[in-house]
Amino acid sequence: MIKIFGHLAPDTDATCSALIWEWYLRDVQGKAAQAFVLETPNTEAAFVLNRWGIDMPETLPALTADDEVVIVDTNNPAELPENVNDANIAEIIDHHLLVGGLKTKGPIKVTMRPVAATATVMSWLIGRDLDAAPDAIKGLMLSCVLSDTLEFRSPTTTPTDRALAEKLAADLNINITEYAAEMFAAKSDISHFTDAELLRLDSKKFDLGDTKLRVSVLETTSPALVMDRKDSLNAAMASVATEDGVDQVLLFVVDILNEEATLLIPNAMVKSLAEASFNTTVTGDTVVLPGIMSRKKQIIPNLKL
Amino acid sequence: MIKIFGHLAPDTDATCSALIWEWYLRDVQGKAAQAFVLETPNTEAAFVLNRWGIDMPETLPALTADDEVVIVDTNNPAELPENVNDANIAEIIDHHLLVGGLKTKGPIKVTMRPVAATATVMSWLIGRDLDAAPDAIKGLMLSCVLSDTLEFRSPTTTPTDRALAEKLAADLNINITEYAAEMFAAKSDISHFTDAELLRLDSKKFDLGDTKLRVSVLETTSPALVMDRKDSLNAAMASVATEDGVDQVLLFVVDILNEEATLLIPNAMVKSLAEASFNTTVTGDTVVLPGIMSRKKQIIPNLKL
Repeated sequence: MIKIFGHLAPDTDATCSALIWEWYLRDVQGKAAQAFVLETPNTEAAFVLNRWGIDMPETLPALTADDEVVIVDTNNPAELPENVNDANIAEIIDHHLLVGGLKTKGPIKVTMRPVAATATVMSWLIGRDLDAAPDAIKGLMLSCVLSDTLEFRSPTTTPTDRALAEKLAADLNINITEYAAEMFAAKSDISHFTDAELLRLDSKKFDLGDTKLRVSVLETTSPALVMDRKDSLNAAMASVATEDGVDQVLLFVVDILNEEATLLIPNAMVKSLAEASFNTTVTGDTVVLPGIMSRKKQIIPNLKL
Repeated sequence: MIKIFGHLAPDTDATCSALIWEWYLRDVQGKAAQAFVLETPNTEAAFVLNRWGIDMPETLPALTADDEVVIVDTNNPAELPENVNDANIAEIIDHHLLVGGLKTKGPIKVTMRPVAATATVMSWLIGRDLDAAPDAIKGLMLSCVLSDTLEFRSPTTTPTDRALAEKLAADLNINITEYAAEMFAAKSDISHFTDAELLRLDSKKFDLGDTKLRVSVLETTSPALVMDRKDSLNAAMASVATEDGVDQVLLFVVDILNEEATLLIPNAMVKSLAEASFNTTVTGDTVVLPGIMSRKKQIIPNLKL
C-alpha cells in the first residue's frame, strides 16, 4: 500500500493534499493508498477536516525499506521521518525551493511548480478527473489554496492558485471571504498551546551556512493574542532550540489582515540577523516587517547573518 | 536569456532535449532561450544533428549568479558545471533517479518521470503544441527516444516512450529500424577516440559509499571494435581515474543487438565488485552480463562492494 504524507508540523496543505492524493490514487487510479500525518496537524487543518467531514488521518508508523511512499508539500529530509531515504520514494509533489537531500534508488516522479499550494500542483496533475471529485475533496483543495495564499494576500499567490480556488468555491457554493475568515479564526486560536508548542506549530528547520535555525511562523488574524505571550515565548526559545538541535528559533507573527510580520527579538544574534536580512533597524524586543507574509518567498531567501 | 543544458559527456538525449526545450521556450512560449552543450557531444548526437540539419549548440560559457538556467537530462551536480548552484535554476526536466545535490534559491519547476528519455517527459509537458513542431524538432525527439531505449530494447522503455516514437516516426515518414541502425552505427564508430576519451564518452560519476566510481558505458552494434582495444583500455583506467578524482573506472560494453553487457575486469577490486553486484563468477579479464543494457536501471542500482 502506498503511504502518502507531508511534512512535520502539518498545516492545512500538508494534511489535506495528502488526502487529495489518497483520493486520486485510490478512487481514480485504483491503487491501494493511504494518507498519513507525521504528527498532530494545526488547528486550521483540524477545522478544515471537520468542516468537510473527513476523519483525521492516522499518524505514520515507522517506515521500512519495503514501504512505497509519496511525499507531498516538502522535499526537505529535515521535515520528514529520519529514515525516509531508506523507503522506496515513488513520487514527490511539492511547491517549495529545492533543498537537495532526498535521494531515490530508482527513477521517480517529481512534480514541483512555483505555485502557492501543493494542492494547486495536484489540480494540474489530476486534470479533468477533478470535475468528478466529491465535494469534500474539492473543499480540501479550496482550503489548501486559501490557507497557503492567506486568501490571496501572500505574494506566493499565482493566477493559477486564484483561478482554482474561485472555480472550486463556485462549484461548492462557498463564499470565499466568509470561509477563509472561519479558517483563519481556527488558526488564530492559540489558547490550548504551550509556548514550546507554539514555537513548533508552523516551523521549518533551515541551515544558514553553519547556523541551524528553526524558522517559525504564526499566521493569525489576532496578533495581540501572540504578543501578549511575547516574554514567555522569548524565554522558551532557548530550551526549544536545545531540544531540537538548532542554534536559534526565529518567530515571525504574520498579521494576515494587516499584511505584515512581527519578528520577536530575544537576543543580539536575532537582532543582528533581522537587521542584515530585512534592511531594518531594531530598537526593542520586536520589529515590524511591513509586507512580509511568506516564509518561502520573503523570509527564507532573505536570511543573512 | 534562459540557458538550457544537459549533462557532461553529452549524448543524444542531453544534447537534443536541450534543443527541443529551446524551441518550446522560444517559439511556443516566446521567451529568450538558448540551448548549450557542456562539452563535445558523442558521435551519435553529432550524426542526429547533422541528419536533421540543426547546428551544433555552442559550449556553455562560465555561469554567473545572474544566469537563469534550465537543466535537462540530469539532476546530478557532479555532471554539471561546478558552480551550478550559484546560478538561478528555474527548471529541471529529467528522468533519472533523484541524486539530491541541486539546491535552489526559490521555488522551482521540476518535472521528473520514470520514462526512458528526457524528450518523452518534454513531449508530455509540450502537449498539443508538439503537433505544430517543425520536422527537425520531431526528428530530434524521435532520436532521443530511440537512443535512450536502444530502439525499445532497454528495460527502461515504457509504453509512453514507444508510442511517442512510433507517432513521431509516422509523422516524419521514418522507418524506425533503418534510422536506429544509422544512429547506432554512428555511435559505434570509435576509431577517432583515444582510450581515455572512450572511457569518458558516456560516463557518470557515482559514489558507492566512500568509493568514487566513474561508471562508463559504450553502447555499440560492433562490440568487437571495443574488445580489440581491451588491453589498452584497461591500462588507461588508472590514469583516467587519477585525473578525474575517482577510485576506479568501470567500463560496460553494451552489445545493443545481442542485449548483453561485457564488463572489463582490470583488477581484483572490479572482479570483486562484479561478483557482488551481478551474481556472477569472474574467471578472466572480462565478464558477460546477459540482459544488462541500462546503467540507470540495471547497473547503478545493483552496484555493491
